[in-house]
Amino acid sequence: MLNVPPKDNKTDPLVLFMPSGKRGRFPVGTPILDAARSLGVYVESVCGGRGICGRCQVEVQEGQFAKHGITSSNGHISEFGPKETRYADKRELKEGRRLSCSATVQGDLVIDVPQDVAVNAQVVRKDSDERVIERNAAIQMCYVEVEEPDMHKPLGDLDRLMAALATDWGFTELDVDFHILPQVQAILRKGEWKVTAAIHRDEERERPRMIALYPGLKNEAYGIACDIGSTTIAMHLSSLLSGRTVASAGTSNPQIRFGEDLMSRVSYVMMNPDGRAAMTKAVRDALNGLTERVCSQGGVSREDVLEAVFVGNPIMHHLFLGIDPTELGGAPFALAVSGAVRAAAHDLGLSMNRGTRVYVLPCIAGHVGADAAGATLTEGPHRQDEMMLLVDIGTNAEIVLGNWIRTVAASSPTGPAFEGAEISCGQRAAAGAIERVRIDPVTLEPRFRVIGIEPWSDEPGFAEAAATIGVTGICGSGIIEVIAEMFLAGIISEDGVVDGSLAARSPRIVQSGRTYSYLLRDGEQKIMVTQGDVRAIQLAKAALYAGVKLLMDKQGIDHVDRIGLAGAFGTFIDPKYAMVLGLIPDCDLDKVKAVGNAAGTGARMCLLNRGHRREIEETVRKIEKIETALESKFQEHFVNAMAMPNKADAFPKLAEAVTLPARKALANDEAAGGRRRRRSRE
Amino acid sequence: MLNVPPKDNKTDPLVLFMPSGKRGRFPVGTPILDAARSLGVYVESVCGGRGICGRCQVEVQEGQFAKHGITSSNGHISEFGPKETRYADKRELKEGRRLSCSATVQGDLVIDVPQDVAVNAQVVRKDSDERVIERNAAIQMCYVEVEEPDMHKPLGDLDRLMAALATDWGFTELDVDFHILPQVQAILRKGEWKVTAAIHRDEERERPRMIALYPGLKNEAYGIACDIGSTTIAMHLSSLLSGRTVASAGTSNPQIRFGEDLMSRVSYVMMNPDGRAAMTKAVRDALNGLTERVCSQGGVSREDVLEAVFVGNPIMHHLFLGIDPTELGGAPFALAVSGAVRAAAHDLGLSMNRGTRVYVLPCIAGHVGADAAGATLTEGPHRQDEMMLLVDIGTNAEIVLGNWIRTVAASSPTGPAFEGAEISCGQRAAAGAIERVRIDPVTLEPRFRVIGIEPWSDEPGFAEAAATIGVTGICGSGIIEVIAEMFLAGIISEDGVVDGSLAARSPRIVQSGRTYSYLLRDGEQKIMVTQGDVRAIQLAKAALYAGVKLLMDKQGIDHVDRIGLAGAFGTFIDPKYAMVLGLIPDCDLDKVKAVGNAAGTGARMCLLNRGHRREIEETVRKIEKIETALESKFQEHFVNAMAMPNKADAFPKLAEAVTLPARKALANDEAAGGRRRRRSRE
Repeated sequence: MLNVPPKDNKTDPLVLFMPSGKRGRFPVGTPILDAARSLGVYVESVCGGRGICGRCQVEVQEGQFAKHGITSSNGHISEFGPKETRYADKRELKEGRRLSCSATVQGDLVIDVPQDVAVNAQVVRKDSDERVIERNAAIQMCYVEVEEPDMHKPLGDLDRLMAALATDWGFTELDVDFHILPQVQAILRKGEWKVTAAIHRDEERERPRMIALYPGLKNEAYGIACDIGSTTIAMHLSSLLSGRTVASAGTSNPQIRFGEDLMSRVSYVMMNPDGRAAMTKAVRDALNGLTERVCSQGGVSREDVLEAVFVGNPIMHHLFLGIDPTELGGAPFALAVSGAVRAAAHDLGLSMNRGTRVYVLPCIAGHVGADAAGATLTEGPHRQDEMMLLVDIGTNAEIVLGNWIRTVAASSPTGPAFEGAEISCGQRAAAGAIERVRIDPVTLEPRFRVIGIEPWSDEPGFAEAAATIGVTGICGSGIIEVIAEMFLAGIISEDGVVDGSLAARSPRIVQSGRTYSYLLRDGEQKIMVTQGDVRAIQLAKAALYAGVKLLMDKQGIDHVDRIGLAGAFGTFIDPKYAMVLGLIPDCDLDKVKAVGNAAGTGARMCLLNRGHRREIEETVRKIEKIETALESKFQEHFVNAMAMPNKADAFPKLAEAVTLPARKALANDEAAGGRRRRRSRE
Repeated sequence: MLNVPPKDNKTDPLVLFMPSGKRGRFPVGTPILDAARSLGVYVESVCGGRGICGRCQVEVQEGQFAKHGITSSNGHISEFGPKETRYADKRELKEGRRLSCSATVQGDLVIDVPQDVAVNAQVVRKDSDERVIERNAAIQMCYVEVEEPDMHKPLGDLDRLMAALATDWGFTELDVDFHILPQVQAILRKGEWKVTAAIHRDEERERPRMIALYPGLKNEAYGIACDIGSTTIAMHLSSLLSGRTVASAGTSNPQIRFGEDLMSRVSYVMMNPDGRAAMTKAVRDALNGLTERVCSQGGVSREDVLEAVFVGNPIMHHLFLGIDPTELGGAPFALAVSGAVRAAAHDLGLSMNRGTRVYVLPCIAGHVGADAAGATLTEGPHRQDEMMLLVDIGTNAEIVLGNWIRTVAASSPTGPAFEGAEISCGQRAAAGAIERVRIDPVTLEPRFRVIGIEPWSDEPGFAEAAATIGVTGICGSGIIEVIAEMFLAGIISEDGVVDGSLAARSPRIVQSGRTYSYLLRDGEQKIMVTQGDVRAIQLAKAALYAGVKLLMDKQGIDHVDRIGLAGAFGTFIDPKYAMVLGLIPDCDLDKVKAVGNAAGTGARMCLLNRGHRREIEETVRKIEKIETALESKFQEHFVNAMAMPNKADAFPKLAEAVTLPARKALANDEAAGGRRRRRSRE
C-alpha cells in the first residue's frame, strides 16, 4: 500500500514529524502521507490518497531546528499539485495547510500533524476535560472505487468491493457484517461504484470487519463514550476522524426508581423475577435517549455513530449487559465477566447504526469496576514514577494505588454516609444544602455556604437568599467540612467524641440524650451535627482509609506521592478537610487533585485510540487485587483510622498546612471509659 | 496440549493409522490419541482425554502387515486403565474398541479409526447417498472443568472458563458470542463448574469463537445441510461428532406460489414492493418447518443444531439471504455476493441455537449457483484426471466441465421444455405420466410405462391399472425417450421433422394442419407428440449442447471422458436417450451417471469437513466462467445441435451401443426447403 522506497540513503532528506518526534530519511518525491505512515505516525485519510477527503492535512514548520539538524521551509515541500489545487478550490484549506497525500518531500522538513483537522462545519463543544487524545480509532473510513460488473468476470458486487479494499487499503482478509449483504448492490449503484466502507478492527491481530457501507465519499464517523454511574449517566459524542467532542449530555440513572444505591438494586433483582430485565431495559432506554440528545445537539445522525465505549461499576456493568448481578451481592462476589467486553450495539438494544460496535472496559474486581479501570487509564498511575493513590468514593470506595512498577486495587465498604444517607441532616448536593463550613475556634460560631446562594452565611444578602431558597440540610462535602472544622475547633476529640464540657462555653453545643450535638444552623429548621453523624462519618472514613492502608502495606510504603479524587464527591470535597478527617493519607496538599469524571475520560480515550484499550486490559490483568475482607490487618487499620486524622499514622505534610489540635487525651479517655463502663453493665 | 515426546528414536514403536495410512514412531506410553493428533489424524474427543465422552474410540488391527513391516497385536497396546474400565462399566464399549485417550502405545500397532463411533442410541437413517465423509467440522465440543470463584483472584466466571479452554484445549485467543454472557454464571453453577463449550472456527486462520455453552458433558452436536431448489427443498440432519445422517426430509418450495420458475419469481420481486420480503419469509419459514421435522425425526433438540450449510441456485441463494435478485434478471447478471457467505442463523431468521452458524457455498456465476458449486464439490471434476462434464438441467442448465488441470463453467438457457412446460401433453413427473417409451421401428407401435403403474402398456394388468390411475400426459424423461425413439424409428428426421409420408404406413402418424404428430396413446384422452413438441425439445437440447460445446472448445477437447447428470431430471432420464437426442456429447454410456442430489451432498461435505469449504472456495475462484451469450460460436453450435444427435459432431461411442438411423437426407431437405419457402413468402 505504501509507496516508500528503501531508506538506506544517508543523503536523502530528513523529515521530522511533530508532535510525535518520529523521523526518517525519505527520497525526494515521497508523499508526506506515506512517509508518516511508514514511521507509524497517525495521519487520518478517508479517500486513500485521492485528494478529496482533506483529512490528511499537515503543516510545514519553517525555521532552523538546530537540535535536529534540520532547516525546514516551505521550499522543501512540493508545489501545489492538481489534487491539492482542486481540493482547495472546492473546500477550504487553511493557510499553510497541505494535503499530505499529495505534497511530496523535496528537502529537509519539520512537519506538524495538527490534531484538529475538521473538514465539516462541526459544532465543537468546549469541555473542561477536553484533553487531546492521540487517535488510533478502531473504525477506519475507507473510500474506494469499485469495478463495475462484467459478464466476463462474474465476481459478485461485494466481492469486487472487497477486492478494491484489498488493493487500495491492504485488507486482504476482511469479514463483512451480514446486514450489509442485502444493501450492497443498491449502495454501489447509488454511489456510482464509489463507496466508503467503515472497517472495524479492535485488536491488531483480529480480522478487520466491514460494519457499514455508504454511497460516495463518507467523510465523517462518530463514536460515543459513556460512564454509566449508579446515579448519573454521562455521555460524550466525538468525531472518530478529528477526535473532537461534538456534544455531551448527562441524565440521572432511571434505575434509581428500583433502588437508590447499588445493593438495593441487587436486592430488587433477587426479589423480583423480572427485576433484572426491567433494570436492563431502563438503563438501555436512558442510553438511547441520551444518544438521541447528543446526536441532535451535534447535528449528527445516529446512523453515523459507529462505536460506543462504556464504563460503569460492576453492578451497572452487569445490568447494562443484561447479566444478573446477584452473584455480586455476596461472597465471593463473582463477576460474570471481568475482561473487556466486545459486542454489537444491536445485541444490546442500542439504536445506532446496525453495525455499531460496543467496547466495555474490563472490571478490576467484584467491587472495582470498569469505571475504576477508566479512571486508572486516565490518571495513569501505571505510567508514573510517583506512587499515586486514586480514589473513587461512592457506597463502595474503589481504590487504586501504584506506579509503573506495580499497581494494587481494592474496594472498601464505606457505606452511604459520604452521600449523606446516614447523616441526620444529610441531603443530596442540591439547592439549599450546606456545602462549605468554617468554625471559629474561639467562639465556636460557624459560617457556611449553601448551594444556590452566592454569599457566605455571615455576608450581606445571605439572609434574603436563604429565605427564598431555604437551608435544608448538609451535603456530602459539607459533612466532611463541618466535622473536620469541629475537630480543628476542638469540639470533637481525636476519637470523635463531641466534648460536652463545651456546652458551658457555647450554646452551639447541645445535649441530646447521653451525647452532645453541634447546632450548625438555628431557626425554624434546625441543622444539627449529632454524635451519631460523627460516628457515621468516622466509620465510613475509617473503612476507606483502612482499605488505602492495606494497599500501602502491599506496596510497602508509608506515604503516597499523589492523590486523585475521582467522581462527583471527589470534585466537591476540599482535599484539606478530607485529610484532616484522615479520609485520605498524608500527602502534599498541592498533589491532591479532583480528577473529575476520570472514568468517562477513560472511556473517551478507549473510543479514540484502541491502543488505550490494550493498555487498560494489560494494566487490569497486572493489577493485584486485594479483597479487604480477607486481610487480617484490615481490622487494626480500621480501628486506628476511627481516630482523627489517625491514631497510628502521622500527617506531617498536613501539619505544615493546618494547625492540628493538640490531642485531647482527657476527653478521649473519659468518653472511651464512659462507654466501656456502660457496655460492661449491659 | 499434546503430550508427545520428540520422535527421533528409531527404535520407538511404529504406529500406523487406518484408513488415513499416516504413521510415525512414538515412545512406549504415548496415548494413542496424542499419537494420532500429532500426525494430523482426526480423532474426535469432547472430554479432552478424561475418558468420559467415549468419542475417541479406536480398534487395534491384529496381524502381520508385511508391506508396512508391522506386526500389530492387542498385546502392543496398554491394558484397560481405570478410565477405560470406568467408561466400559458405565457405557457400552464394543468388543475390541479402546479409548485412545487412555490406551497407550506399547509396541508396533496398526490402529483403525472407525468412522461410525456413535455413543448415544441414535436413530440412523439409511440414505442411498450415505457416503463416508472424513470429518473436520467447524464446531468442536470442548468439555472443561472450571476453577471456582476465589476472592483472592477476582477473575470473572467467563474469564476462568476461557482460561480453562486455553489450558485444556489450546484456545489462547477466543471470541465469545454475546448471548452467552448473561447465561454463563447459571450454566457454570448448574454444571457444578463442569461445562462443555461449543467452539466454532471455520477458517483455520480466523479466531475461534464460543457459540454455545452447556452444563456438564455435552456429548453431541448436530448440523444441517440443505439444498434450496426452486421446486424442492431437501434437508439432512447430521451428527457433527459421528458424521452420521440422523434424519432427512424434503418439502416443496413455497415460493412456487409467487412464480413457478426462477424468472417469474424475479419478475414478482420487480412488480411487487414487498415481493422480496415475502419470498424470503416464505423460504425461511419452510426451512424452519423442515428443521423442526428433521429434528423431531432424529429425536434432536433444535438447540443442538449448531451449524447449517446451504446451497441453491443464485436466485434461491439471494432470496434466502434476503437479497433482491433483480440484478440477476438482466445483463450483466451481477450477483450481490459470489463468495461463500458466513452468517449467524439468528440473522437469517432461522430458529436453531442462538449461536448457530450458517455457511453458504460460493456461487460460480450469475446463473451458475452454489448448487452447482455443491455438485462440483461432490463429483470433483477438479480432483480427476478424466475430463468430466457435470450437468444440472433446469430452466437454466448449469454446466461444469473440467479435470484437475482446468475447470470451466457456464449456464445455458434451456427454457422449461425439459420440465414439460412447453410440451403439448407435458406434465410434472407424477402418477399418470408416461415416463418410458419404446417404438417398434417396423410397426411404429409404441409401448410405454406410466408412473404409478407397474406393468408396461403391452403387459397384462396395465389396462386395469390405467383405468384407475389414468394416463394423463408425458413427463420430462418420457419426452426425451419418445422423441429419441421417434428418431430411432425413423419417424422424425435428423432435423426433427415428423415424416408425413409415414402416415400412409401407420395410423399413429397424424396430420395436424401443415405438420404431422405422433399418436402415443389413443383413447378418450389422446396423447400426441406434435411437431411443436419436437421443436421445443430441439431448442432446449440445442441450447444445452451448445453450452457444453463452448466449454469443450475452451478446453480444446472433442470428447469428454465422463458425464454426471445432477438433479431430479438427471436421475430419471436414460443417458442413452439423452445422447441419442444429442442433449449431451458422445461418451462411453457406462461413464454417464445420474449423480442424484449432488448439490445437497456437497452441502453435507462442507458441513462435516471445513476442508471441503476451502476446497470449493478455491475451486470456484479458479473455475473459468463462460458467458454463453457473449461467445460468437454459440450460434453456430446451437444450429448444429438442432439436428439429432448433431449435424457437426459424430457420436462414435453411442453408435457402438445404438443403431442410429441412416440420415434421411430427402425428408430433411424437403422439410427445410418447405420451411424456407414458407418463410420467404411471409
